[in-house]
Amino acid sequence: LLTPAQLSRLRVVLCSTRNPLNIGAAARAMTNFGFRELRIVTPYAPAFREARSAVGASHLLANAKQYDTVAEAVADGTLVVGTTAVRKRQLQHSLRRLEDGARLIRKRLSAGPVALLFGSEKFGLTNEELSHANWLIRIPTVEANISMNLGQAVAICLYELIRDPKAARLVEKAQSPSAAEIDRVTSMLLEALSLSGFLGRRHVADSKQRIRRLVRRLGIPARDSTIWLGMLRQILWKLNSDSNNVLGARD
Amino acid sequence: LLTPAQLSRLRVVLCSTRNPLNIGAAARAMTNFGFRELRIVTPYAPAFREARSAVGASHLLANAKQYDTVAEAVADGTLVVGTTAVRKRQLQHSLRRLEDGARLIRKRLSAGPVALLFGSEKFGLTNEELSHANWLIRIPTVEANISMNLGQAVAICLYELIRDPKAARLVEKAQSPSAAEIDRVTSMLLEALSLSGFLGRRHVADSKQRIRRLVRRLGIPARDSTIWLGMLRQILWKLNSDSNNVLGARD
Repeated sequence: LLTPAQLSRLRVVLCSTRNPLNIGAAARAMTNFGFRELRIVTPYAPAFREARSAVGASHLLANAKQYDTVAEAVADGTLVVGTTAVRKRQLQHSLRRLEDGARLIRKRLSAGPVALLFGSEKFGLTNEELSHANWLIRIPTVEANISMNLGQAVAICLYELIRDPKAARLVEKAQSPSAAEIDRVTSMLLEALSLSGFLGRRHVADSKQRIRRLVRRLGIPARDSTIWLGMLRQILWKLNSDSNNVLGARD
Repeated sequence: LLTPAQLSRLRVVLCSTRNPLNIGAAARAMTNFGFRELRIVTPYAPAFREARSAVGASHLLANAKQYDTVAEAVADGTLVVGTTAVRKRQLQHSLRRLEDGARLIRKRLSAGPVALLFGSEKFGLTNEELSHANWLIRIPTVEANISMNLGQAVAICLYELIRDPKAARLVEKAQSPSAAEIDRVTSMLLEALSLSGFLGRRHVADSKQRIRRLVRRLGIPARDSTIWLGMLRQILWKLNSDSNNVLGARD
């Protein structure tokens, strides 16, 4: 849904992050979803160095910019959104659930840069950091466990921004076999059931219809019809040769 | 959206996970979103021990069950869904985007247990592990970077299961001030503009209307109207006292 231009307009701003693994995780989620601009505000210096030098650290992380203040990091943003785990922090800002906030952010990304702020692992965004935000979003966690891992929180926010409510249309279904192939499977199964005596114990016409419906309900994928036919063919061969042997033995 | 009964029916099944941090991260995301049943299949044994003994390891992680085979771990599932980063693994299974797959999983959780499988960090689910799945989901990552961090992938899948498309209705807006308070702010601002000479340079009637609209467009939160009134009152006092002084000096 987001165009490359819109993706490039989001600034993920990590404030006071301590753990280098979290800086790396944020960068990784950004590359997974096509975002580009990571900004780090007064990181615990060794954490940033360590994250940057980590094995597999991305181009994105290497290009992350470091800022001394939130004001500088969000200066080009036409909208600044803070993230919080807390529900009612005296409501100095409007607080939206992520589902709704992401919708608004997507709209604003069409027009100009949007900064999305994440606070430190332990305390979240400070009041000073929050004062730069226009409004806040929260991920809808359960009341008893509101504190999320930072890397996971970043990943979920970015996912919500790129998710496509119309994705149902994009299902890649395993191809279905043709009706003719299904008919071949049905015929062979019927023959095997007949030879094995299964159909002999029932009224045949009705049973055949039932078996036909049973096979169609299986939903055999196209790629599997050949192997099913092969298995049935082998079973039929064995059933036929056994009954011939039995007949032969009677002679 | 999911009831406690539905939440309790999801089994998060980690197959061949190596990194204890990822087992811990999966457990943490589960507690964030209210899921309960974590199952571990043949984990790299030290990883599982380390994850369980980690500081802050949850009740959920302590109660995670260990299994030797995928078959045992998913035995009670009426639906088994695999996760994959790969787009077209020859389509042995139907492959759905997460948005669509989660919709189907939610439905099935009303009826019975559903197992959601995650593979190892390096290789994902093996073909053997995948053979237990009814169908697969993929998180809609960009083609160039399909490989996600395991803990982040688990968190995103669980979030998609609990997200509420109607969340827009649940916005907690900062309370707006009454029209009377807005009028007081407007009046004081007009007085300040008048005293400062700003309004003198324009046709007054039109300017007043403009200022009135300007103030309303600000969207001052209820909790802030008092401080705005205080600031304006102070500025008015200063403007008045200065002009008195000037008049006094002229006397």
